[in-house]
Parts: sequence; structure tokens; C-alpha cells
Amino acid sequence: METHGKRAPRVPRAVREQQMLDAAVAVFARRGYRATSMDEIAVAAGVSKPLVYLYLKSKDELFAACVRREAGALSAAVRAAVETGAPPDRQLWSGLLGFFRHTAEHRDGWTLLHGHARSSGAPSGEEVAAMRVEIVDFVTSLIGSAARAAPCGPRLPEDEARGLALALVGAAESLAGSSLGGREAAATLMNFAWAGLGNLLTGVTWAP
Amino acid sequence: METHGKRAPRVPRAVREQQMLDAAVAVFARRGYRATSMDEIAVAAGVSKPLVYLYLKSKDELFAACVRREAGALSAAVRAAVETGAPPDRQLWSGLLGFFRHTAEHRDGWTLLHGHARSSGAPSGEEVAAMRVEIVDFVTSLIGSAARAAPCGPRLPEDEARGLALALVGAAESLAGSSLGGREAAATLMNFAWAGLGNLLTGVTWAP
Repeated sequence: METHGKRAPRVPRAVREQQMLDAAVAVFARRGYRATSMDEIAVAAGVSKPLVYLYLKSKDELFAACVRREAGALSAAVRAAVETGAPPDRQLWSGLLGFFRHTAEHRDGWTLLHGHARSSGAPSGEEVAAMRVEIVDFVTSLIGSAARAAPCGPRLPEDEARGLALALVGAAESLAGSSLGGREAAATLMNFAWAGLGNLLTGVTWAP
Repeated sequence: METHGKRAPRVPRAVREQQMLDAAVAVFARRGYRATSMDEIAVAAGVSKPLVYLYLKSKDELFAACVRREAGALSAAVRAAVETGAPPDRQLWSGLLGFFRHTAEHRDGWTLLHGHARSSGAPSGEEVAAMRVEIVDFVTSLIGSAARAAPCGPRLPEDEARGLALALVGAAESLAGSSLGGREAAATLMNFAWAGLGNLLTGVTWAP
């Protein structure tokens, strides 16, 4: 192998690519898809613009790669956190903890997914929407299990469980953007949602 | 006053402007800020492009006018719906009904506010954010009143009330995008939120 005198050792492609994505996620989160230029990302990553283009062919592709990485990391964090086999409320609590801890530690990634990628002006809106549907499905099935496990609970129709899951996911998205810490946000939402669901599942409902 | 032979009677400026905004809201909702052109809006409104520019000087300004109109209409609908002076749960229920009925009847306006205007790529993000803060403040004060009114309820610190309000507003936003009708969405959320809050306010909380 050649030596290059005093030149710094070559950074492997995979490492370099992750560094570029780190820089791109930060810039996209701060400025939005539309206002971000490849120049800014190159500067933030400390590399030349041609190198950015060599790795990721266009701004669209770079944005899509950022969204894919951040969505994958969030999904993986939630999946890893859920205590499978535990009672439904523990499963939900552990999943919420995983979600809020990850979003609190990855603010830029969350801003990208929630704030920018859902707007139809940006590419990758469909991937983010698909990830959201997956999460809503998971919460729907959790609520369904909880309803079936309730000893004298009423049957909860599938579409009602889905409505509750949509409400819960929306509440989680809203709290993820707040200044609450991960555990605090999870506790707030668990109190809001479960104390409510606990009543619903035993047939106590609020009526106008 | 001159006559113009068979020419159609002139449409007053205010009416014409509302027609343009109607068309613009529909096109922006479908295509997003970035992909929409002034040409498409002129075609949808059935007027010439110079006329659109005469009334609203740029795409940015047109988008901002759409957001302002839709945000104002939504705020007004919620305010008009709230039964001021009623018990807190009735106030919340009536406000939610107003919110969900309005968003169900103005799908394009809601898509504009929730789906597009919040992305930092689009102008008017700050106005939409300000409207949201106003709504969160209102719900926070409602929860605060409910807590104070509960006979043997615990003191609910302001920041906890705000966390619950954020969760509730996020849940409402999520359900507004669903296929549920206005009353159905309001009932789903009221069951989710109030049966939960009812417990919280009397000190019954879920703990891990």
C-alpha cells in the first residue's frame, strides 16, 4: 500500500458517509429541505462539495438517506425498548420510554422526521408516513390486547382501538417536540393515556 | 358609468380575492408549497396569471394569505363553539366538536395548516406556530380550572397542565387527519382524554 507522506490517514467510505449524514441531518433540521444547499452541508461536514456529490448524487437523495437513517434508528430504538410479553401497560410504558429517550437524544433527527419530511414539498414523505402507520398499527394491537385481557371489559371494536391509537401517537409526537426530558414526557403521556384507557377498558366512558 | 356590451359584470375585488384564495388553498393542499406554481393557481381560479400577481404580489404572499385566512377561520370556529361558563368537561367537549367539525369541513385548509405550513421550507410557519401556542394555552387554562374545581383533587402544577394540554392538542391534530367524522373524532378524543384526566384530577395515577 502506498504512503502519502504527511497526509492524514484515509477515512473509510462508510465512516465518511455517516459523518456527511450527521452534518446533513443537522443542517436540514435547522434550515428545512428547501433552504438547505449542498454547499452548507459540505462546509458542515468539513469536506469538498464534489465529495458530497460523489457519495450522494443529489440533494433529494441526500435528504432521503437522512430520513431513512433517522426513521430506522427511531423504529429500532422503540422496538428494542418494548418489554415483549409484559402486561400491555408495561409494554406501552417501555415503548414510550424508548421513543421519548431516543427523540430527546436525537433532536435534529426528530425535527427532520416530524417537522420537515412530512411536508409534501420534501422527498421521502411517503417513507415517513409508512413508518407512522407501522407505529399506529403496533399501538392499535396493544390496545386490542389490553381490551381482550380486561376481565369484564367491553369488546372494543377495531376502528375504535385505531382511533385511540391515532390519538396516542399524535400526543406522543406533540410531547416529543416539547422541552420535557424523555422520562418526564413518557410519564406525562402514560398518565394521560393509561389512566384514561384504564377507565375505558372497564366500560367507564365520558358522555356529553 | 360605462357599459361594456356583453361583457360579464365585474366581480368585486374582495369576492375575486376570496375566489383566488379558495383555488390557492386547494392547490397548495394537494401539491405542497414548493411544487405549486402561480400558473396552476391562476388556472384553478379561472383567471389570468397577471391578475393573480396584481392581487397578491408573490407566491410567498399568496401562501401567507391562505394560511392567515385558514388559521383565522379555524380559531374563530373553535372560539364560537366553546360553551363559555360551562363545566370544564363541557367546555372541552364543545371546543373539540367545533375543532373537528371545522377541520372535517375544511380538509384543504387543515392540510395547509398542519401538513405544509409547519415545515420550515414554507413561509408563515411562525404564524401557524403562534396559533398553536394560543390553543395550547387555552387548553392548559381549561385543565387548570378543572383541577382547581375538583373537590378533593390534588394541586396540578402549571407545567404538568401544559404537558397534558400538549398531549391533548397533539392527539386532536392526529385525529383531524383521520377519516373519522367530526362528532366521532370529538367523542373518541373526549373518551381518551377526559376519562383519563378525570382520574388524574382525583389523584389516581398510573405508575410503572
